[in-house]
Amino acid sequence: MDQKETLELLKSIKEGALSPEAALDKLIKAPFDDLGYAVVDNHRAIRQGVGEVVFGSGKTPEQICGIVKNLADSGAQDILVTRLSAQAAEVLGATCNLEYHELPQLGIVNRNAGKELVGSIVIASGGTSDMAVCEEAALTAEALGNNVTRLYDVGVAGLHRLLSKLYVLSGARVVIAVAGMEGALPSVVGGLVSCPVIAVPTSIGYGANFGGLSALLAMLNSCSSGIAVVNIDNGFGAGFIASRINKMEGLA
Amino acid sequence: MDQKETLELLKSIKEGALSPEAALDKLIKAPFDDLGYAVVDNHRAIRQGVGEVVFGSGKTPEQICGIVKNLADSGAQDILVTRLSAQAAEVLGATCNLEYHELPQLGIVNRNAGKELVGSIVIASGGTSDMAVCEEAALTAEALGNNVTRLYDVGVAGLHRLLSKLYVLSGARVVIAVAGMEGALPSVVGGLVSCPVIAVPTSIGYGANFGGLSALLAMLNSCSSGIAVVNIDNGFGAGFIASRINKMEGLA
Amino acid sequence: MDQKETLELLKSIKEGALSPEAALDKLIKAPFDDLGYAVVDNHRAIRQGVGEVVFGSGKTPEQICGIVKNLADSGAQDILVTRLSAQAAEVLGATCNLEYHELPQLGIVNRNAGKELVGSIVIASGGTSDMAVCEEAALTAEALGNNVTRLYDVGVAGLHRLLSKLYVLSGARVVIAVAGMEGALPSVVGGLVSCPVIAVPTSIGYGANFGGLSALLAMLNSCSSGIAVVNIDNGFGAGFIASRINKMEGLA
Amino acid sequence: MDQKETLELLKSIKEGALSPEAALDKLIKAPFDDLGYAVVDNHRAIRQGVGEVVFGSGKTPEQICGIVKNLADSGAQDILVTRLSAQAAEVLGATCNLEYHELPQLGIVNRNAGKELVGSIVIASGGTSDMAVCEEAALTAEALGNNVTRLYDVGVAGLHRLLSKLYVLSGARVVIAVAGMEGALPSVVGGLVSCPVIAVPTSIGYGANFGGLSALLAMLNSCSSGIAVVNIDNGFGAGFIASRINKMEGLA
Amino acid sequence: MDQKETLELLKSIKEGALSPEAALDKLIKAPFDDLGYAVVDNHRAIRQGVGEVVFGSGKTPEQICGIVKNLADSGAQDILVTRLSAQAAEVLGATCNLEYHELPQLGIVNRNAGKELVGSIVIASGGTSDMAVCEEAALTAEALGNNVTRLYDVGVAGLHRLLSKLYVLSGARVVIAVAGMEGALPSVVGGLVSCPVIAVPTSIGYGANFGGLSALLAMLNSCSSGIAVVNIDNGFGAGFIASRINKMEGLA
Amino acid sequence: MDQKETLELLKSIKEGALSPEAALDKLIKAPFDDLGYAVVDNHRAIRQGVGEVVFGSGKTPEQICGIVKNLADSGAQDILVTRLSAQAAEVLGATCNLEYHELPQLGIVNRNAGKELVGSIVIASGGTSDMAVCEEAALTAEALGNNVTRLYDVGVAGLHRLLSKLYVLSGARVVIAVAGMEGALPSVVGGLVSCPVIAVPTSIGYGANFGGLSALLAMLNSCSSGIAVVNIDNGFGAGFIASRINKMEGLA
Amino acid sequence: MDQKETLELLKSIKEGALSPEAALDKLIKAPFDDLGYAVVDNHRAIRQGVGEVVFGSGKTPEQICGIVKNLADSGAQDILVTRLSAQAAEVLGATCNLEYHELPQLGIVNRNAGKELVGSIVIASGGTSDMAVCEEAALTAEALGNNVTRLYDVGVAGLHRLLSKLYVLSGARVVIAVAGMEGALPSVVGGLVSCPVIAVPTSIGYGANFGGLSALLAMLNSCSSGIAVVNIDNGFGAGFIASRINKMEGLA
Amino acid sequence: MDQKETLELLKSIKEGALSPEAALDKLIKAPFDDLGYAVVDNHRAIRQGVGEVVFGSGKTPEQICGIVKNLADSGAQDILVTRLSAQAAEVLGATCNLEYHELPQLGIVNRNAGKELVGSIVIASGGTSDMAVCEEAALTAEALGNNVTRLYDVGVAGLHRLLSKLYVLSGARVVIAVAGMEGALPSVVGGLVSCPVIAVPTSIGYGANFGGLSALLAMLNSCSSGIAVVNIDNGFGAGFIASRINKMEGLA
Repeated sequence: MDQKETLELLKSIKEGALSPEAALDKLIKAPFDDLGYAVVDNHRAIRQGVGEVVFGSGKTPEQICGIVKNLADSGAQDILVTRLSAQAAEVLGATCNLEYHELPQLGIVNRNAGKELVGSIVIASGGTSDMAVCEEAALTAEALGNNVTRLYDVGVAGLHRLLSKLYVLSGARVVIAVAGMEGALPSVVGGLVSCPVIAVPTSIGYGANFGGLSALLAMLNSCSSGIAVVNIDNGFGAGFIASRINKMEGLA
Repeated sequence: MDQKETLELLKSIKEGALSPEAALDKLIKAPFDDLGYAVVDNHRAIRQGVGEVVFGSGKTPEQICGIVKNLADSGAQDILVTRLSAQAAEVLGATCNLEYHELPQLGIVNRNAGKELVGSIVIASGGTSDMAVCEEAALTAEALGNNVTRLYDVGVAGLHRLLSKLYVLSGARVVIAVAGMEGALPSVVGGLVSCPVIAVPTSIGYGANFGGLSALLAMLNSCSSGIAVVNIDNGFGAGFIASRINKMEGLA
Repeated sequence: MDQKETLELLKSIKEGALSPEAALDKLIKAPFDDLGYAVVDNHRAIRQGVGEVVFGSGKTPEQICGIVKNLADSGAQDILVTRLSAQAAEVLGATCNLEYHELPQLGIVNRNAGKELVGSIVIASGGTSDMAVCEEAALTAEALGNNVTRLYDVGVAGLHRLLSKLYVLSGARVVIAVAGMEGALPSVVGGLVSCPVIAVPTSIGYGANFGGLSALLAMLNSCSSGIAVVNIDNGFGAGFIASRINKMEGLA
Repeated sequence: MDQKETLELLKSIKEGALSPEAALDKLIKAPFDDLGYAVVDNHRAIRQGVGEVVFGSGKTPEQICGIVKNLADSGAQDILVTRLSAQAAEVLGATCNLEYHELPQLGIVNRNAGKELVGSIVIASGGTSDMAVCEEAALTAEALGNNVTRLYDVGVAGLHRLLSKLYVLSGARVVIAVAGMEGALPSVVGGLVSCPVIAVPTSIGYGANFGGLSALLAMLNSCSSGIAVVNIDNGFGAGFIASRINKMEGLA
Repeated sequence: MDQKETLELLKSIKEGALSPEAALDKLIKAPFDDLGYAVVDNHRAIRQGVGEVVFGSGKTPEQICGIVKNLADSGAQDILVTRLSAQAAEVLGATCNLEYHELPQLGIVNRNAGKELVGSIVIASGGTSDMAVCEEAALTAEALGNNVTRLYDVGVAGLHRLLSKLYVLSGARVVIAVAGMEGALPSVVGGLVSCPVIAVPTSIGYGANFGGLSALLAMLNSCSSGIAVVNIDNGFGAGFIASRINKMEGLA
Repeated sequence: MDQKETLELLKSIKEGALSPEAALDKLIKAPFDDLGYAVVDNHRAIRQGVGEVVFGSGKTPEQICGIVKNLADSGAQDILVTRLSAQAAEVLGATCNLEYHELPQLGIVNRNAGKELVGSIVIASGGTSDMAVCEEAALTAEALGNNVTRLYDVGVAGLHRLLSKLYVLSGARVVIAVAGMEGALPSVVGGLVSCPVIAVPTSIGYGANFGGLSALLAMLNSCSSGIAVVNIDNGFGAGFIASRINKMEGLA
Repeated sequence: MDQKETLELLKSIKEGALSPEAALDKLIKAPFDDLGYAVVDNHRAIRQGVGEVVFGSGKTPEQICGIVKNLADSGAQDILVTRLSAQAAEVLGATCNLEYHELPQLGIVNRNAGKELVGSIVIASGGTSDMAVCEEAALTAEALGNNVTRLYDVGVAGLHRLLSKLYVLSGARVVIAVAGMEGALPSVVGGLVSCPVIAVPTSIGYGANFGGLSALLAMLNSCSSGIAVVNIDNGFGAGFIASRINKMEGLA
Repeated sequence: MDQKETLELLKSIKEGALSPEAALDKLIKAPFDDLGYAVVDNHRAIRQGVGEVVFGSGKTPEQICGIVKNLADSGAQDILVTRLSAQAAEVLGATCNLEYHELPQLGIVNRNAGKELVGSIVIASGGTSDMAVCEEAALTAEALGNNVTRLYDVGVAGLHRLLSKLYVLSGARVVIAVAGMEGALPSVVGGLVSCPVIAVPTSIGYGANFGGLSALLAMLNSCSSGIAVVNIDNGFGAGFIASRINKMEGLA
């Protein structure tokens, strides 16, 4: 409710069209449902264009089911549940219409398969081992209604693989560049394209990669411009912001 | 030169319109000038839409002057020189048309003041002390042709300051959220807007902020969606990617 | 035994009411029982108002049973055993009157259920996944005799959930703010209340949260005043100090 | 403005005592002044009991003067300016009534010297070198109206110094324990008192103290209960929360 | 295809010996096979002298089999598969000719046992516990055609063991020095030989070795000259670069 | 063989009492046995007073058995095997005379139970949970022939427990102070005794203890003098150096 | 005052030889002087054999003078002031009899030059650049009455330098091994001697030495036995504990 | 002196050609000069092919002069002094024939300008700001007798600059790849060449580069094979090992 709407509301009190008590109700009504263990944000789609996403880690299967049910009951589709273990997915799948992807541990409830996909997000990865993170990004972006092109295993150790796909990169509105180890892919991609690049460090590697720290620091320090970074292994976060960028309207 | 153009070129050899030697020249001509200490990328504006930016730190004033002169000679305007010390600015200002901003240590050579500004980037900051980083972002975005609205000192310790400016935030196509210390601003902003948010951690603070690490980690771990992060104190990087996003064309 | 009591004791030697040997005994008598593997502090309740708490991690079930039995034999009630695994709880439950909470891995022996609860501690959490830590804090505070109000899943990504509960926060004498990931909740809460805030970082999250480091650093660097921090996942510690603060007597 | 007050306001519209426009004004009036570079929070004293504190680091002397003047003009007293360099203090002192303490780099504008001091905060320190941090805490607490007792250089390497002052500690409503190096003081104090302890790690030391990290980690991991920690060298933060605790009213 | 070859190609178009379409084909033909989940680099042996190596970690057994089959089908021998778990090896062994070494988790497909071994690489280790890493280096170097001498358990705590083998070290063209814990072996070896030394830190140790960090930092800071370092536990990387050095041709 | 002995040897060549070949043999004979995977140091007891100790971690049971057998065959007694898992102990126990302690994972082969114990080492610990590390130190010191007094669970949170045992501490020739969490015990002990203190940080704790880092840093930064530190959880190392100190001969 | 003395004291009350008030005085008399900013420990020499040492860093010259004067007035000799800057030394030298060593920034007040030196401490260093730390250790040990032999620049990159001095090492009762960079010296020395070794990491080096962290971690993880470590650059601490060990009496 | 030479020596005693005393002399003569503060290794050139290099940091100008003089007196040429400040260079230049390079802070004493240069080392850098480190590597390699080709400012953000110089890279026997920030250059270079690559991370950058840590970790985790890494900013170390590799003799 913006200022203009508020003024209308207040005027309607003066005009007697609305009682003060009813107006108070409208002014303070909490746009969420309180489940005790969770406070479900039913207005997020209105406020932000995308409904609440459920972070599965650290929640019991029962809590996940409760939150998802609440969202579904309010009519939500394409409800994303991230970091959903196979065991929890089994429980959740028994109570609702779940599409589960085991590699990226991602669940989508009440999938709207017929949704039109728009724009163009390209997801490039350094290696096959980064695939779980890539798929979390790809499936998230697709569930949010974006066209996604997968360009996997085009790491910088064999540059010609990437260069041969320049025409794919040049068609992107946003590129998601996913890499573990030294995390150099976003820097190289960033120097080749003119659209925004979202960099995703992965925990793939060993030793002095320190769980993805090497790739994270590399990406934050990229000498290429036009790059921003999300958390280690955060395919969901990359898919989400890429969707927001891809769906940008043109300048009036 | 894309594949289609290459085929045209090769055909024109066959047709005799072009000698093989001239074709080779076209195929391999390096799109840069080699100054010995630097290799200036003259084609970057063609390839990426924005000319090369000069990173002033660790270069002698003479090297900076040489690189800038080379870019200027090829007709570039609004040449950005980041991390430009006041001393180096004095040297550079003596040899070219420099607009220098001391707080963010940013130089702009051959400023095109009449450039039309488009769209809407909002830069929100946690506190007055973050101003140098904010201005680096703001001036970068303005030099790249974007409308910028400054919303400084709206940190989360006094939430009403931020909430009272919701109408400003809601008009943004991109928000740059700048904060030091606990770096909470992007999370709060991210929950209020429906456009992409670029988060910039600053090194403001002391003790266990470890030079900006506290804010960086907080922003990478934001529980809000739609946020991506640039390096600590990297106002330039935020302004640059925000410009790319702000200038997105609409979906066909 | 304070100085005044000591002087009384010494005088009673002079007066012959006490032999020097008996006085020495009183002066050096160790206020603890030595079990070999543990030295149980029987006077802690006298000295500090709360009896000794047993840290279950790294102890064998047998050692835990021994220590608890020793405390119980001296009449202690509401004996807290933290970090008590389900297996150790089974062993302990077989030998004494144990109330066990599996989520926070907390045991309470000889629970005094009728104890009057006083004051008002509000425990706010960023998300449902923080619930184990919250419950450790809540159950600790309740066992120590405090009224506790739970305000779970009111994280900063959906600020209206927290703002709608301002009336609850404003009734608190102490707030415990629990959050993982970017740990922003205490900063926001700290800007809204006028009572002390105890911040608890949790290890919830992944990637660059580094086991709770992101939330810890954020909380230590809070730009809000009136906040102090306990160890990562240390719900017990937060409940304990909150109890001390909540039970403060008024200024004379 | 709480819900009841809001209802009154809305009723007065209905009754015609207030125009909708005036009511809107009351509902949205921002309780702050926007200086461009800073947004001064004039209502903080009402909302939180203590006026806004100015963090001097990273601000120009001119900005500090502007913010302080704004606060002073609204009638504030005992305005704290932390991390105020001697140079900035000279500029500030020329424009207002400043009491400056160089060791802790703390300024107090419009000091209300006659304010009654209440309760009892004891500040204990490990060594003489921690004195700057201690004084920041002590002066903050005194400016906020608390009685402060200084117990400096009572570190654990000579335990009898601390034990001989047990009677001082036992009179405290809150203890602030300040230490660098191994940061053991709060653990020892915490085992001796029954009031809340606020621990302040300092950056005093060298080598593997890593700028105060050793003391910080030690304090967060204290085996004593009843301790919470503030940022490294954050004497102000300790003084502030200690004041809140010291001034607690008794349970009804 | 170097510039000279390109010119020849272009000339043959002019001469009509080659159609423009065929020339384009030659110019852009990607030297790899795209398996969807992986892009296999078939030209690496031509470009770099050694075929592609498969990093087994983070890939499904099916993906590994697919990549190996693709390489084998193009005639590759001695195909290395690193970080190959025993389970994955079982799957892979069922579909191709696999030699599997469980200790270093290394597989070699289509081993060319008759290959001549040249030069001299000496692998020295600090202790028996480093043996898995040593064997990864040794087997890699042998598969790449190098003579390898193993000098295990000659750590610096018993210097005479190393000194008694000086004659072995002095016969090396390259030394690989492998050590965990304090990682001192490369420094000592580096002071005794006149050939290049490749240092490999291992994660052997506990406590403040932080997963190999202690050895890594020690090796990077070696006071001996002529040492370069690979990642923690990276026996493969050490064997690979040692092979390159060992096989160097003499200066013309 | 010192210089004097060498000269004798060389003289005996001149005198014909020894052939040059035999002399060479004596000069270069390696004082160890090479088992391929290990080089056993048979002279260590001669050179350093204590035989070689076997580090069990990262070795196969077979390798451990081989090394121990080799040492035993040369007549060694009280052969220590540290970090010996229960499974490996079972294998080892089947082939030799093994005394195994499961808590500290320590094996002693061919225990010489009748050995006279000398001097006085006191091992003090912060808590019962540190017991595994304490016992590793205690059993090591006893196997090396030292009298050991155990003073467990005397941490600084209940100082009277430690103070009541001052008479025990004052009888020590060396104190080993073991603590996890904040690691304050050595600082307090160091201020009370006049003998050397060996500090052992343990990994007991959670959250910001970072696997023992908190205790390690605290101990390295102790404000008490006369303290030196060994690795995290390194009970063996503490017992070993304490033995060396305890057995010091007096100044002539 | 031990238990026996206390009993005597109490008996003398009974016998009337001492009044209860005088006895209390004796029991509680604080063995220190309170200077306000410092509490000087006059009994430390009695309790621990060595007088209080003044840590100069973070204290004003005036505070240092005050503390030193207090110690000197009670008759102390060889008063050590560590981390004493040249400027502070100038102030201190004007008020008392100061011997100042600029390289290690160490002051000694009222030097007792005629003191007999006993035993044998050998200080070995990796390089000339470690000399400041070495001298802090050497001068501390000499001031405490120990014979010191300096063995500088015998780092492991040129092992023969160390091996040629084996006869010096073998005469030591304690060795202090000082090294920066990779910190390997203590491990090598530890394998050659049979006396305790105190390892001192220095901050000498650059890059990944992280201010001495590389050497510190290396030394903590030494594969040689009989080594304990002090803080980075803590020459004083090494000299102090080495003195305690060197002066050990023989076993009765 | 190897075993064969030793046997000859011993035989010559038997034959009376050498006295036992003279033989002892030959066997134990220390191949160094002891200057008190430094032990100069005169045999290093014999043992390792290159004379001792002086690390200037942490040494007084007088110590540097003394060490250099000692080396020069024994006839050494091209004596390298690294980390030599301009001030120290002035002192050193006054006493000997010094060639000083200020950017890399490198001195060369008694430069042998006429030395023949062999082979081919290519030094590639990410940016102009890395030039100081590059020059340290280049000048070191040249002083050691290697041909060096400089390829500066060919970072991955503008890949065509590097690709256009492929013919230079392909002529290298060793490549030194120098980069700060994200340190991606060695990975890209490593995928393009078939010779060994020495990677040098630099401290160029800011924020989350943490003094070069980002580039260091990236290089250690390179997905390209054939790469080994030296310390941050260690141009000397890279030049030295590259020289060793470049000068390798061919396989017999």
